[in-house]
Amino acid sequence: MIKPKVSYFGDVGSFSEEASLKFFGDALFIPCKRFRDVFTNVQSGVCDFGVIPVENSLEGSVGEIYDLLREFEVMVYGEIQLRISHCLIALPEVRLGDIRYVYSHPQALAQCSKFLSTLNVDLIPYHSTSSAIKLIKEKALRDSAAIGSLRAAELYGMNVLAREIEDNLNNFTRFLIISMRDHEPTGRDKTSIIFGLPHVPGSLHAALEVFAVRGINLTKIESRPNKERAWEYIFFIDFEGHRLDSNCSEALDLLRKKLPYMKVLGSYPRAT
Amino acid sequence: MIKPKVSYFGDVGSFSEEASLKFFGDALFIPCKRFRDVFTNVQSGVCDFGVIPVENSLEGSVGEIYDLLREFEVMVYGEIQLRISHCLIALPEVRLGDIRYVYSHPQALAQCSKFLSTLNVDLIPYHSTSSAIKLIKEKALRDSAAIGSLRAAELYGMNVLAREIEDNLNNFTRFLIISMRDHEPTGRDKTSIIFGLPHVPGSLHAALEVFAVRGINLTKIESRPNKERAWEYIFFIDFEGHRLDSNCSEALDLLRKKLPYMKVLGSYPRAT
Repeated sequence: MIKPKVSYFGDVGSFSEEASLKFFGDALFIPCKRFRDVFTNVQSGVCDFGVIPVENSLEGSVGEIYDLLREFEVMVYGEIQLRISHCLIALPEVRLGDIRYVYSHPQALAQCSKFLSTLNVDLIPYHSTSSAIKLIKEKALRDSAAIGSLRAAELYGMNVLAREIEDNLNNFTRFLIISMRDHEPTGRDKTSIIFGLPHVPGSLHAALEVFAVRGINLTKIESRPNKERAWEYIFFIDFEGHRLDSNCSEALDLLRKKLPYMKVLGSYPRAT
Repeated sequence: MIKPKVSYFGDVGSFSEEASLKFFGDALFIPCKRFRDVFTNVQSGVCDFGVIPVENSLEGSVGEIYDLLREFEVMVYGEIQLRISHCLIALPEVRLGDIRYVYSHPQALAQCSKFLSTLNVDLIPYHSTSSAIKLIKEKALRDSAAIGSLRAAELYGMNVLAREIEDNLNNFTRFLIISMRDHEPTGRDKTSIIFGLPHVPGSLHAALEVFAVRGINLTKIESRPNKERAWEYIFFIDFEGHRLDSNCSEALDLLRKKLPYMKVLGSYPRAT
């Protein structure tokens, strides 16, 4: 059997890599430095799938991912969630008292703010959790630590000074699996769409009516700027059901008629 | 007359300082390093007003601000918008060809990605646009530039290597003025509220109905994670009208009865 080719965001040791391994098991994995590269690899056919973080249960949505879903012709094939647990990571033999600087992705620094406020350290925002660990290892920074996953600490042969340092243990990230096609119905599905609204009061209410009268449950609504005109928005909605289910397909047909712009991103099995 | 005390986010030279000057003219200004400090200063009475960025017309909302509006007992007293134009800023006598590193806030780096991709430089995320300029000045980094405002470049006595380097000139940031009270009606107002929804399909549609049947125009809807339970949301809505206008006040009374949680953040004159 030919292994699928999967692009994911971040370095080896990133949470996206962990999500990719959990979803695909065995595959040919290609790490990407930018979200955009994951989308490009999928759209151009270099890869069969892409894995990108779309939402964190504490920090909210990753706005750029929504913009890229609008821009590219890819579809959503699946979703997976990961419990995010952060560690304070340093070179072997470095002790907590030696640490003066802590490097990590701004979101990881924010998620550990209570623990970090008990240390007397400067926080330094960095590209990603895994690149922060790599920096400390490669530059042999003995006065610095990084925040990242246990798995990344082990992969880079680094020492864990503290575990589960996040403020709120209710910390999950949801990743999307993108591809050039979506998933066949499974009976436990979700559908993601994007739409724009006409400029009249009550237009969002009128759009949501097609779901409400059919008892279709919305699991998420997200608004993003319409970059062409300031203070106008594009909406992203996730709802339960597959686009091929009769009630969902009716709702989508009605929306297409009502709205100036509507695009189905795809239907896929709900993450458990 | 006693000058009002105004806390704003960022350093001297930040866009928030510029917004504060534009809104208040003469006041006693107190820069704050963290969004949270602005809220604390207002709630504790240290300051009369606070100024914080809430939304950019390209990048979208500042999620943390919404969470702080929920957490603190402050109200929204006003809003103001600022055209955001970025410059590439370096030490005097440094030339474009000398630049190997560009420091700035991740959002500013993202907003200038097209221009930056024409240079052969490494991008380094930093706390704020103004702190990036300060870093280059204080450490005398001759191989580095920062991205920030023309005003900040002048304030720090730095040289501007390129102007209007943002990808999209349709780049505005909206700032909120927070206080312990909101604004009296002016006839051209806006109201901001927060609410939670009951767990039934159609609940968002039912909530928006109170606005739709009264022809009240929503200018924004934003969802944020309910941090107590993963994948549940709190909604933030802005609509036209003052909470004391009869149609708005009726709509708000109905919402209070329908919803498990609702809080009026305040009514204030719409920015022009």
